Amino acid sequence: MTILAHPDTAQDGDREESAPTTRCRILAVAERSFREIGYQKTTVADIAKTLKMSPANVYRFFDSKKAINEAVVERVTGEIEALIARIADVAGLPAEARLRQAIEALHRDTVARWDGYPRIHEMIEAAMGESWGVCRHHIDRIGAVFERIVRDGVRTGEFEAEDPAVAARCVQAAITRHTHPLLVGQLPQVPEPTLDQVIAFVLRGLRPAR
Amino acid sequence: MTILAHPDTAQDGDREESAPTTRCRILAVAERSFREIGYQKTTVADIAKTLKMSPANVYRFFDSKKAINEAVVERVTGEIEALIARIADVAGLPAEARLRQAIEALHRDTVARWDGYPRIHEMIEAAMGESWGVCRHHIDRIGAVFERIVRDGVRTGEFEAEDPAVAARCVQAAITRHTHPLLVGQLPQVPEPTLDQVIAFVLRGLRPAR
Repeated sequence: MTILAHPDTAQDGDREESAPTTRCRILAVAERSFREIGYQKTTVADIAKTLKMSPANVYRFFDSKKAINEAVVERVTGEIEALIARIADVAGLPAEARLRQAIEALHRDTVARWDGYPRIHEMIEAAMGESWGVCRHHIDRIGAVFERIVRDGVRTGEFEAEDPAVAARCVQAAITRHTHPLLVGQLPQVPEPTLDQVIAFVLRGLRPAR
Repeated sequence: MTILAHPDTAQDGDREESAPTTRCRILAVAERSFREIGYQKTTVADIAKTLKMSPANVYRFFDSKKAINEAVVERVTGEIEALIARIADVAGLPAEARLRQAIEALHRDTVARWDGYPRIHEMIEAAMGESWGVCRHHIDRIGAVFERIVRDGVRTGEFEAEDPAVAARCVQAAITRHTHPLLVGQLPQVPEPTLDQVIAFVLRGLRPAR
């Protein structure tokens, strides 16, 4: 005998799992939909339907599509920050090598994550417009990782920077075209500067005067 | 006695002026509409109506909204390139001062042109997506102006650059956050690096090693 949930109160997905699992599944489905269908055309009802949940159950976790997007962006940016922080903290590697690897990883991750999804810009723009705090937080945390590497380099004499925090922010600005999700799509059509050329330029700007 | 044009063949604006003037008026109205109403919601019929023209007359000049946008972007980018080229060619000014002024002018122009029009990103994105050639051409021409300044500086010994073309492209990439129409809107909320800090960093990357 099969027991069916009452359709008005709960659908299949509504109470079979723990809250953190449900939250994760909502975010995974939302991210895929924002990527493939686009942020504009995705509705909370679509997300619920894919999960065989009632929209009301999705709203128990997130009070709006905007809140879902913020959580998606927080998850994605958190993964990226963890990746970069691991590289920054590798022991025994010169600061220059770590800075280079961190920049390359950031670039590769951005390209791999967004390439081939032309509608992804909608999600990024929604985040930049409605949820700037989340984006700003990400910029600050990546800047802080770069700053750690620059400070290490200044301490060992590899780098010279009057203000390591400002220098790190300038490095971050210099790689925007290679790491901003709204811009990397056009990179193959603007062949220069390559990321290698930008890294060499940035390292030149950090090297001691004599 | 008033002579009325036959409504099926021509409206008021259809044949009162020379073709270049009509072309210009179409572009001016289109640009204002893309800026204020947004590229998505603007139709060729709206543009014609504002000009008291038949849509057919607009189509005599531009075969699609995309073609109108390309012409708008070409006009805007042409103005910006002329502005930067004038600064690059000022006689008697050191290369460093000209590079600084060109960057500052590019930044100021971008902010003044797009600030306060949240829908402008639609037009920029349409250009980046459907008419990349026009954007690419603009990037190339600004890069060429920067390259001219860098070459001057290398010749006078102010700058040092293994490949001035690559160095100029790296300078251009480094100021993306301060000069890209899709990004300048967020600048007030990412206070660092300031444009001055980026310019100082870039000049450090160009200065001779000893």
